[in-house]
Amino acid sequence: MSKKSTATETEGLTQLGHATSLPASPDQAVLERVPNPHPDQSYCIRFAAPEFTSLCPLTGQPDFAHLVIDYVPRKWIVESKSLKLYLGSFRNHGSFHEACTMDIGLRIKELLSPRWLRIGGYWYPRGGMPIDVFWQTGEPPKGVWIPEQGVPGYRGRG
Amino acid sequence: MSKKSTATETEGLTQLGHATSLPASPDQAVLERVPNPHPDQSYCIRFAAPEFTSLCPLTGQPDFAHLVIDYVPRKWIVESKSLKLYLGSFRNHGSFHEACTMDIGLRIKELLSPRWLRIGGYWYPRGGMPIDVFWQTGEPPKGVWIPEQGVPGYRGRG
Amino acid sequence: MSKKSTATETEGLTQLGHATSLPASPDQAVLERVPNPHPDQSYCIRFAAPEFTSLCPLTGQPDFAHLVIDYVPRKWIVESKSLKLYLGSFRNHGSFHEACTMDIGLRIKELLSPRWLRIGGYWYPRGGMPIDVFWQTGEPPKGVWIPEQGVPGYRGRG
Amino acid sequence: MSKKSTATETEGLTQLGHATSLPASPDQAVLERVPNPHPDQSYCIRFAAPEFTSLCPLTGQPDFAHLVIDYVPRKWIVESKSLKLYLGSFRNHGSFHEACTMDIGLRIKELLSPRWLRIGGYWYPRGGMPIDVFWQTGEPPKGVWIPEQGVPGYRGRG
Amino acid sequence: MSKKSTATETEGLTQLGHATSLPASPDQAVLERVPNPHPDQSYCIRFAAPEFTSLCPLTGQPDFAHLVIDYVPRKWIVESKSLKLYLGSFRNHGSFHEACTMDIGLRIKELLSPRWLRIGGYWYPRGGMPIDVFWQTGEPPKGVWIPEQGVPGYRGRG
Amino acid sequence: MSKKSTATETEGLTQLGHATSLPASPDQAVLERVPNPHPDQSYCIRFAAPEFTSLCPLTGQPDFAHLVIDYVPRKWIVESKSLKLYLGSFRNHGSFHEACTMDIGLRIKELLSPRWLRIGGYWYPRGGMPIDVFWQTGEPPKGVWIPEQGVPGYRGRG
Amino acid sequence: MSKKSTATETEGLTQLGHATSLPASPDQAVLERVPNPHPDQSYCIRFAAPEFTSLCPLTGQPDFAHLVIDYVPRKWIVESKSLKLYLGSFRNHGSFHEACTMDIGLRIKELLSPRWLRIGGYWYPRGGMPIDVFWQTGEPPKGVWIPEQGVPGYRGRG
Amino acid sequence: MSKKSTATETEGLTQLGHATSLPASPDQAVLERVPNPHPDQSYCIRFAAPEFTSLCPLTGQPDFAHLVIDYVPRKWIVESKSLKLYLGSFRNHGSFHEACTMDIGLRIKELLSPRWLRIGGYWYPRGGMPIDVFWQTGEPPKGVWIPEQGVPGYRGRG
Amino acid sequence: MSKKSTATETEGLTQLGHATSLPASPDQAVLERVPNPHPDQSYCIRFAAPEFTSLCPLTGQPDFAHLVIDYVPRKWIVESKSLKLYLGSFRNHGSFHEACTMDIGLRIKELLSPRWLRIGGYWYPRGGMPIDVFWQTGEPPKGVWIPEQGVPGYRGRG
Amino acid sequence: MSKKSTATETEGLTQLGHATSLPASPDQAVLERVPNPHPDQSYCIRFAAPEFTSLCPLTGQPDFAHLVIDYVPRKWIVESKSLKLYLGSFRNHGSFHEACTMDIGLRIKELLSPRWLRIGGYWYPRGGMPIDVFWQTGEPPKGVWIPEQGVPGYRGRG
Ligand SMILES: [Ca+2]
Ligand SMILES: [Ca+2]
Ligand SMILES: [Ca+2]
Ligand SMILES: [Ca+2]
Ligand SMILES: [Ca+2]
Ligand SMILES: [Ca+2]
Ligand SMILES: [Ca+2]
Ligand SMILES: [Ca+2]
Ligand SMILES: [Ca+2]
Ligand SMILES: [Ca+2]
Ligand SMILES: [Ca+2]
Ligand SMILES: [Ca+2]
Ligand SMILES: [Ca+2]
Ligand SMILES: [Ca+2]
Ligand SMILES: [Ca+2]
Ligand SMILES: [Ca+2]
Repeated sequence: MSKKSTATETEGLTQLGHATSLPASPDQAVLERVPNPHPDQSYCIRFAAPEFTSLCPLTGQPDFAHLVIDYVPRKWIVESKSLKLYLGSFRNHGSFHEACTMDIGLRIKELLSPRWLRIGGYWYPRGGMPIDVFWQTGEPPKGVWIPEQGVPGYRGRG
Repeated sequence: MSKKSTATETEGLTQLGHATSLPASPDQAVLERVPNPHPDQSYCIRFAAPEFTSLCPLTGQPDFAHLVIDYVPRKWIVESKSLKLYLGSFRNHGSFHEACTMDIGLRIKELLSPRWLRIGGYWYPRGGMPIDVFWQTGEPPKGVWIPEQGVPGYRGRG
Repeated sequence: MSKKSTATETEGLTQLGHATSLPASPDQAVLERVPNPHPDQSYCIRFAAPEFTSLCPLTGQPDFAHLVIDYVPRKWIVESKSLKLYLGSFRNHGSFHEACTMDIGLRIKELLSPRWLRIGGYWYPRGGMPIDVFWQTGEPPKGVWIPEQGVPGYRGRG
Repeated sequence: MSKKSTATETEGLTQLGHATSLPASPDQAVLERVPNPHPDQSYCIRFAAPEFTSLCPLTGQPDFAHLVIDYVPRKWIVESKSLKLYLGSFRNHGSFHEACTMDIGLRIKELLSPRWLRIGGYWYPRGGMPIDVFWQTGEPPKGVWIPEQGVPGYRGRG
Repeated sequence: MSKKSTATETEGLTQLGHATSLPASPDQAVLERVPNPHPDQSYCIRFAAPEFTSLCPLTGQPDFAHLVIDYVPRKWIVESKSLKLYLGSFRNHGSFHEACTMDIGLRIKELLSPRWLRIGGYWYPRGGMPIDVFWQTGEPPKGVWIPEQGVPGYRGRG
Repeated sequence: MSKKSTATETEGLTQLGHATSLPASPDQAVLERVPNPHPDQSYCIRFAAPEFTSLCPLTGQPDFAHLVIDYVPRKWIVESKSLKLYLGSFRNHGSFHEACTMDIGLRIKELLSPRWLRIGGYWYPRGGMPIDVFWQTGEPPKGVWIPEQGVPGYRGRG
Repeated sequence: MSKKSTATETEGLTQLGHATSLPASPDQAVLERVPNPHPDQSYCIRFAAPEFTSLCPLTGQPDFAHLVIDYVPRKWIVESKSLKLYLGSFRNHGSFHEACTMDIGLRIKELLSPRWLRIGGYWYPRGGMPIDVFWQTGEPPKGVWIPEQGVPGYRGRG
Repeated sequence: MSKKSTATETEGLTQLGHATSLPASPDQAVLERVPNPHPDQSYCIRFAAPEFTSLCPLTGQPDFAHLVIDYVPRKWIVESKSLKLYLGSFRNHGSFHEACTMDIGLRIKELLSPRWLRIGGYWYPRGGMPIDVFWQTGEPPKGVWIPEQGVPGYRGRG
Repeated sequence: MSKKSTATETEGLTQLGHATSLPASPDQAVLERVPNPHPDQSYCIRFAAPEFTSLCPLTGQPDFAHLVIDYVPRKWIVESKSLKLYLGSFRNHGSFHEACTMDIGLRIKELLSPRWLRIGGYWYPRGGMPIDVFWQTGEPPKGVWIPEQGVPGYRGRG
Repeated sequence: MSKKSTATETEGLTQLGHATSLPASPDQAVLERVPNPHPDQSYCIRFAAPEFTSLCPLTGQPDFAHLVIDYVPRKWIVESKSLKLYLGSFRNHGSFHEACTMDIGLRIKELLSPRWLRIGGYWYPRGGMPIDVFWQTGEPPKGVWIPEQGVPGYRGRG
């Protein structure tokens, strides 16, 4: 059972429970972690982040995406508020769709050393064609339940 | 009853029942009409045309739209094949969204002198923002049933 | 209360409770009526008939439609089995979309002399464009509840 | 405010808080009412009852319906458990779709003397054609908010 | 324009920007208001609150609802954090569906003296039948845009 | 066949058929079981619990979730009323999303010693990002049918 | 080809083509079979039965379910009318959700000795929590196409 | 590339490009084929045919279905117009749901000798229960992409 | 007809057809207009902008919204690229939901002096409750067709 | 990390950042590529192109399709603007559905030499029957995440 671990889980965190301003860039964002409350079980955690925006590195125009991140933790889970601030740090940062999605996935992987991780980046259309990017660290671990993300495809109009 | 009027309705038509090629422009398209089979009743006819495309007059790039046309006929109804060819004639024709939608509505109105007509142009997004254009010839005639077109709004992704 | 009226309501009917074969044409179909069980109330009855098919009078090819009929009865309501057989009688009968929808509405109106009636004909696409036909006998009677038919528009693909 | 009225509202009820068996017929069902907690306001109460079943009076075969009841109370509101038992009492009772829907609406109206009431009966298809029945006691009272019931139409397959 | 009014709008508030615990009951909740940033315009504000729960006053069992509140402000608009805490204060409070929905609407009305207000309470089913409650303060003000709430009806299974 | 086992199945239960109040915490809740009516067959039982709420252990603010539990019983199945009361016992209990979902799954597993079990916790968004937690006891048993839970992803607005 | 087998297929049946009353209990229902028209092919037959109802064995209150049955026939296929009557025979029969679903699956299995069979029971919510039951006779036969049943999960309100 | 093969592909066809009347029965229908434009690649072709109708061999009443056919061609692909006419030839032909679906699949298989084929027959409900029939010629070929057909299940009403 | 007006419509514009960077604030954005191509007709133009983001003036955290703007032009229509840049200029600008939505509506109104205008702001949830803001300049002009915006309500999870 | 690679990635491109006109045919279109920003990771890129149109090679009439392309890059990724122009080049080019879909897939494969690629062509109905074409270069690479495309099937009307 995990009921007594609350205090331990959150000490040392720099952002949770404090007023925080949006980091100026992904490099300045502090992505933090807390102990996995159930390190002896293999389970999957999903974050849906429909409020993602960055800039096009060629034109400086805003880009928008719906991101969904799935991972199977080992020793650590990501602290949600720091994840929110990290994603917010792309607001004025230029990045191509493919690289941006991958970079986010790789950074979380680096922080958590999870058993497995995947990220789906569902970008809003440009030139009438949306791009989706799907990456995972490899074959999902056997015996772990990882449902499809099921984000609806882009239909245009009609 | 309207069962015996088939022959009369279609004679004089130049396109129905013939092989026809796509008109090169809206000006060259021949929009045709047949007698209203129930001229003594007020009813509404709806055409949904999700296969519409034209060109952007500034950039020459293709535009796409889903069009829905509703009208209450008086003496004439539009002949469907000629309508299809007329809509197809915008394929290599430059036109802004607002003007294009209006022009189609006005041309059908001119042909049919209907009691009432409306056109909804549901354009695919450009720059992340779709434009819809809604025009009707005026207040719908009293006592005639005209359901909403109900074309789903654009949702982006997520 | 209407509980004792069952016997009266159905006597004289020629099709209900009997084996019946499909009438060869709308003219041969016998559309029947039973007494309105609540003639002192104004209410609306809706039939949805998604299994309608007729023939194109020009090409002989099959046409399909989803029909929805609403009416506010006066003295009579339509007997459902006879309605089903009447609609089935269009199976090998040629009729244009507009006329066919109207003819069905007019025939039921003639049989029932309802306070009000409407019919929506939602035809499957031909040449990429479906036709819908919407007819009602006039302004709906005041104070009677008549919800929208809400049949989804045609979206093409995507 | 209505916070202290709980005891008063429920005393005298014969079914709420007791084990109850299904009444054998609508006639044997005891439909009960409690005081309107806000008799000085005009508001609408909606019950959705997707678990309704009765018998066909001709064949004895089961019929099913989704019922939705809206009303604007005056002095009384219906007690939900008694409503549930009343609707359950049609289980082995023969009734035509049109009459059954109307009878339920009329019985609740008689009990409550509401300012206004309506019932929508959305019956499962027979012979491929579902019947809906829509009844209201008259023009909805002015200034009261009564949203559409919005029950999806029957689509067949595909 | 309303750009400079931020400081004024929030001073005097007791909960916004402070750590706050859930009020023990609706009576102990402090519902607060801020000046309407556009008092010279008639517009509608909608809050959707799908996270509402209270207790059944008869059984003590939890009830759940999705609430949607629309109002047209006069001098004041509700401060969102205090609204959230007020709604949270029903967590361990007993209230019938009809009265609970009405009480919330009346309390907000009392605080804001809006031009107009309505509340829709969409309760989770009990005994297989959900109850919806719809109340507004009267006829919506003319010329103000108030879209339907469009909460999907309950469908049971299938 | 299982028709005669009803009496046996329910004797010894402390909550079914009795008035019961909400347990004050998960520790005080009594989760109960009854014999599997078909212990010689491998089948899956799913409970959907869209009415779940707990408290955030950091802020004391309410959290909401939609839970779905699937299991393949061995000797026992869970008694539904006790499950409902157990889930209700989190109402005033602080728990992080990940730990809470896992704890529920582990407790049911402990009670039933099922052949297999999984739990999906679909939490309402906080900070714009909902968390889902997916756990199963291991690879699903071969030859048993376990459909996807298919809970729609969070889409934000639009 | 199977075109000439109609007569053979239906002779000996006791219910098809005759007026039949609802059997009083599952034990009294006569479930019948006809020869598989394509015994040399492995294919799957699905029946969706959204009109199922039984009684709660504890309280006598009605329960409702949407059932979906899939099977891969060997020598026999089930005769639809007898299946309908068999399902109707639960109308006044007490049965728990889990056992009821399983019993139906086992009875059809016994009648047909199919290569494989599964049944999904999607029950309407009680106490806010619906139960689904999923059973199959074992691993689906290799090379046979058996799509997911895809019955939408229960969403509560909102 | 396949650009020059058009002439070859269509020569010898008897129906494409000609006026054609509906064949009187499946036996009289001429199902035709054209060369596979990419015989060196393994790909899947899907036809959705929501406009299918036949007759019940017992009662002569119309039946309707939505058919979806998938196949992986070898040397030949089916010519669409002849497929349409073949499906239309069931219009006045009696056939049971199971046999009819299978017969269509077998006839196309015989014509094309494809690497693999499947057919889904989604029939409209009779007696409140729709039948679906799913057949494939065997295990799908490895490495070929064959998405699920995803035809929505029948939901009844509500 | 409007076909020859392209050149005139776009001359004098400072942004269309040029590389442009995102304005630093709404004040610095240049919202531009072009002549209405059909000034003699009353029609409605809708822009859907699901890619809107601004900052919370209290916390500096990002806010997101889906905006939909409808207007009936008089002499001018808005130039889409400048509208896109104007909306983009809120990216690093602090604004409350209600004021932000209103300010955008008022600015476009000021630029175009339209016959009528409305804006719907559908904001992403904060604290579990999304806010929608609905404003129009007054009663819609008679005889002009203005469909509902139909943006789906927020449902939480489940 | 890929942050510094922007300049390198786009140099040598002939279309990105330039005004470009629609190529007259697929042969004249210049499909371009840029370096894969994460060549050491296996990930999938999806383009949805709902704005595709070509001509029927037999009749010259327009055809429409929704295309979805998935691929796992090796050294190169496709440059989006050139892909858009390539797809636009089919506008006045005749091609059968099956061949057209395949040709597009093969051309992108030839350009990129990806680890794996697939294309789904979802064509609008002709003669009431839409054709879908599904092709992939072979078994998807192990350990790479490739979600289903999930394009809704064609439903006709109703
Ligand atoms: Ca890149
Ligand atoms: Ca776009
Ligand atoms: Ca223009
Ligand atoms: Ca006609
Ligand atoms: Ca078509
Ligand atoms: Ca009757
Ligand atoms: Ca009360
Ligand atoms: Ca319930
Ligand atoms: Ca934790
Ligand atoms: Ca939130
Ligand atoms: Ca049991
Ligand atoms: Ca057969
Ligand atoms: Ca039926
Ligand atoms: Ca403000
Ligand atoms: Ca070809
Ligand atoms: Ca067609």
